[in-house]
Amino acid sequence: MSLRGNALIGQSGGPTCVINQSLVGIVEEAVRAEAIQNVYGAVHGVKGILEERLIDLGRESQETLEGVAQTPCAALRSVRKKVTREECERILGVFKKLDVRYFFYIGGNDSAETAHILNEIAVAEGHEVRLFHVPKTIDNDLRVTDHCPGYGSAARFVASAFAGDNQDNRSLPGIKVDVVMGRHAGWLTASSALAREHADDGPHLIYVPERVFDMDAFLGDVDRVYKEHGRCLIAVSEGIHGADGKSMLKSKEVDSHGNVQLSGSGALGDMLAAEIKAKLGDKLRVRADTFGYLQRSFLGVTSEVDAAEAREVGRTAVRTAVQGDVPHGSIVIERLGEGANYRAGFGCTELKNVAKETRDLPEEYLTGDNDVSGAFLDYARPLVGRMPRATRLSDFPIG
Amino acid sequence: MSLRGNALIGQSGGPTCVINQSLVGIVEEAVRAEAIQNVYGAVHGVKGILEERLIDLGRESQETLEGVAQTPCAALRSVRKKVTREECERILGVFKKLDVRYFFYIGGNDSAETAHILNEIAVAEGHEVRLFHVPKTIDNDLRVTDHCPGYGSAARFVASAFAGDNQDNRSLPGIKVDVVMGRHAGWLTASSALAREHADDGPHLIYVPERVFDMDAFLGDVDRVYKEHGRCLIAVSEGIHGADGKSMLKSKEVDSHGNVQLSGSGALGDMLAAEIKAKLGDKLRVRADTFGYLQRSFLGVTSEVDAAEAREVGRTAVRTAVQGDVPHGSIVIERLGEGANYRAGFGCTELKNVAKETRDLPEEYLTGDNDVSGAFLDYARPLVGRMPRATRLSDFPIG
Repeated sequence: MSLRGNALIGQSGGPTCVINQSLVGIVEEAVRAEAIQNVYGAVHGVKGILEERLIDLGRESQETLEGVAQTPCAALRSVRKKVTREECERILGVFKKLDVRYFFYIGGNDSAETAHILNEIAVAEGHEVRLFHVPKTIDNDLRVTDHCPGYGSAARFVASAFAGDNQDNRSLPGIKVDVVMGRHAGWLTASSALAREHADDGPHLIYVPERVFDMDAFLGDVDRVYKEHGRCLIAVSEGIHGADGKSMLKSKEVDSHGNVQLSGSGALGDMLAAEIKAKLGDKLRVRADTFGYLQRSFLGVTSEVDAAEAREVGRTAVRTAVQGDVPHGSIVIERLGEGANYRAGFGCTELKNVAKETRDLPEEYLTGDNDVSGAFLDYARPLVGRMPRATRLSDFPIG
Repeated sequence: MSLRGNALIGQSGGPTCVINQSLVGIVEEAVRAEAIQNVYGAVHGVKGILEERLIDLGRESQETLEGVAQTPCAALRSVRKKVTREECERILGVFKKLDVRYFFYIGGNDSAETAHILNEIAVAEGHEVRLFHVPKTIDNDLRVTDHCPGYGSAARFVASAFAGDNQDNRSLPGIKVDVVMGRHAGWLTASSALAREHADDGPHLIYVPERVFDMDAFLGDVDRVYKEHGRCLIAVSEGIHGADGKSMLKSKEVDSHGNVQLSGSGALGDMLAAEIKAKLGDKLRVRADTFGYLQRSFLGVTSEVDAAEAREVGRTAVRTAVQGDVPHGSIVIERLGEGANYRAGFGCTELKNVAKETRDLPEEYLTGDNDVSGAFLDYARPLVGRMPRATRLSDFPIG
């Protein structure tokens, strides 16, 4: 006999374009589950639970839910908060008070950690509650799962931006630096390579945090590519760092307040552009763009594969929770076929396997110091959905 | 009897997402015109003519042309070059040598000026040639025409970016500055307002170059909005300037080389974010993104209205040229209906009406110092095509 009570859903951390697909997947499966009476939402994640700022998701119309599913960023609103043990105890108090027996937390590895601590306290206090982490992150750096909901759409945005910027750079040649999100792992920066079709297409150089960034080597790479192609398009992860592990920005002390803030600033791109001009020539046309929050929130650029999977991950969380074979866990995606036969399966792993640690790009997905491998392209291509293509003229000679 | 000979096409200036629609519109109408024998393309605009780097566009397949039409940025490759009188004479020499009797130059007001000078020389030298300017610019700052091909797609990108970033800012509240292209005119920055639906939706503040930018007033505006909504999303044109007409950056001397480079740098946004933190509070969550080249080159975000009009503008140029009632001119779009009855007509104006001068946002499209009017929204909405919509939860109370 299944555990009866109410369900509560929260969203946490940086937005993605499909995080609401998971929310709606949970809601639609929860309202249909016999064991679940009410489906509540916490406004601004754990902060909303602590403040008892809760809403009734069960009363939302199907039309609203479908619209919300297609809207980027956390419809429940999000939070960046590391909860203390004392706060977890207060959260459990709210669970008891409102008879919350199912808690679904959509977020990154920090959210898995929160669910993990809540579970320990629930067990200690004897309040039976099913706790499930529903993964999301554009960084794709969660362990166990083949890939994370949110990554495919962000990768599609980055690949589309590079496909366009490659045409821009070909129209008006010069050196262009594009800074991509990803503080610790280069998954998103690597997706820039999906934009390439012809041998001379950019990005010509790709720098990820999995490699030590050496300024002299970088300038040598840029010089070589520029001499070969008369232009150079560069993808740089915001998380690149020197051999000392420190951000390239810290050594430059760009931020007057001493913060090394990576996103929401053009500082890294501007610094690299200035270095290129200073060392390779002041007359060069050098530009830098930092893609910023558009990568995680742009309305209308979504991978249909990512959207469908994010929805299913939410549904799977509820089915797994209600079934009750495991009292808690984190939902994972398995790859059941390669290439044109790509297909996703959905399962569950223990919270502790996902909490805390993250996952870098494996060695086999990298080539040398500044490129990705064919194996990475095979991995990423099915996730971004059907991409628009850029077409060139044939350049037939006259006469 | 119509003028017989070859046609030549060039593309100039900054890319747009539909500049190749105009190119393909010209090619498909030119290959069909009896008076035109060959259809040539100049690689990199006037530079390609001077170097006789020409290609045969008449041999491109329909499939390639259709693919090219949907590809952003100049397929013929572009150039930023102000031609001298001597160079114009050499260009006319190439026209004579290759029997070029029809020249179509796709570009901004500088390209109209180039066509204007070429015409004067052609008349003086007695070489009959039809010279037509085919407008394109994301800035929407050309005179006479109701709007410019390229603007609708860039405005769609900006509106979509703000619609997403408004959700991001609502998910994780803070102060966010987004810098939009537009050196002299605020048309593109103004399009950020198309993202708004609810009373508290951002952008909450919009700053365009048509108004003098006052830092103290700006900080006061941000403080007021942040106190009211607990968040603040700001659209700023890269071309904002103080009462002295100078860029906000110049006074800050951000660029070590003395250039005030507006695009391809995050300097303006970072400067504004730093000012907000310094004056309103160091603990505030303040971020800045500069949309950069994505606004003019992103693959896959195109207004279907803009694409169709850009194509028709190219076709109109050839039809007008072959018909021969006027020997030269610039193609213009007329608005034949408002709102749901929006419809575009196509005509031609004299080159001198478009060359040199540009067009700012008129006073009736602005409200106060930091917003646009309903009249602007009525003007811009039909141009961006059918936009995806963002949906909110209803936030029903529980219990």
